Amino acid sequence: MGINQVVAASAAPKGSIYHFFPGGKLQLASVALKEAEQGEGQWFRGFFQQRESIAQKVESLFASAANLLEESEFMKGCPVAAVALDLDRDSEGLRAVCHAIFTTWQNIIAAGLNEVPEAERAQVAEFILATLEGALILSRTEATKDPLLRAGKMLAEILGGKFRTVRRMSPPRPDEQGSACETR
Amino acid sequence: MGINQVVAASAAPKGSIYHFFPGGKLQLASVALKEAEQGEGQWFRGFFQQRESIAQKVESLFASAANLLEESEFMKGCPVAAVALDLDRDSEGLRAVCHAIFTTWQNIIAAGLNEVPEAERAQVAEFILATLEGALILSRTEATKDPLLRAGKMLAEILGGKFRTVRRMSPPRPDEQGSACETR
Repeated sequence: MGINQVVAASAAPKGSIYHFFPGGKLQLASVALKEAEQGEGQWFRGFFQQRESIAQKVESLFASAANLLEESEFMKGCPVAAVALDLDRDSEGLRAVCHAIFTTWQNIIAAGLNEVPEAERAQVAEFILATLEGALILSRTEATKDPLLRAGKMLAEILGGKFRTVRRMSPPRPDEQGSACETR
Repeated sequence: MGINQVVAASAAPKGSIYHFFPGGKLQLASVALKEAEQGEGQWFRGFFQQRESIAQKVESLFASAANLLEESEFMKGCPVAAVALDLDRDSEGLRAVCHAIFTTWQNIIAAGLNEVPEAERAQVAEFILATLEGALILSRTEATKDPLLRAGKMLAEILGGKFRTVRRMSPPRPDEQGSACETR
């Protein structure tokens, strides 16, 4: 979220931002980012906590992003990405904040990748996040949902094909049961 | 490229930017974007005009982006993405400029996807561009090359597996020769 977006949303004159946030862009960005971490974190959780296939989760995620973008008249973007691309040597502190938020989101996604072997989950989650952030930018410039919808379908198809075996919540195997349930 | 980056690069006081570009951010952005369209267009062409497999092209592209980012001490980002994420209702004109540049790059990538059926090339090129833009943001916030390198490897593996048959520059088959070369 650039200061421009905040000003547009608030209908306040640009100068007044610096009245409410004397720390300027840095302080404003930190506050906005903390809110995004929570809000979008819940949004990611909404998809990746479902009992659906990886393909369904990914397609729903991208479709939802496309709808939200359309509802905002293609003005909404990812606030973390916006700050990340606007980092300069005076706002180096924000880099770590952005990184921490991406890591939070990546962990939420990874936790829902049941079909993916555990050792690969972080990387697949990072790939999903990267594709989402990039497609969001393309959709925003095109002012259509299409890039997000197309990327979501393609990614869903790719990951659905690659990670086919659903690791269902199954009762523990006999050899696992002993350690957790021993009552001797 | 935010005004901040331009100021940092030029070591000029921020106010002087508005002296040289009285149109402010809008004019500055348009000028910077036109240069990026050419410069990065050449960069994309350097990979996708090669006689290599799609996997090699994609992996080289992402590795090069990672190296450029590291050389810039993780300050460089995609100027078009930065402008796209900073669009507001006063800079609506820039949206079309950003979109046109992404389309130019996408066409350059698509033209080099020899293994991909023609009807799918635009979409695959868009997917490559989206993943690159997103991974660039993640690498920038992490201040390491890793997200770009990991995404590049994963994308190369996926596309290499999906589009295996290289359509080589082969002499036309006898039944194709007739229509183009008839001299009756």
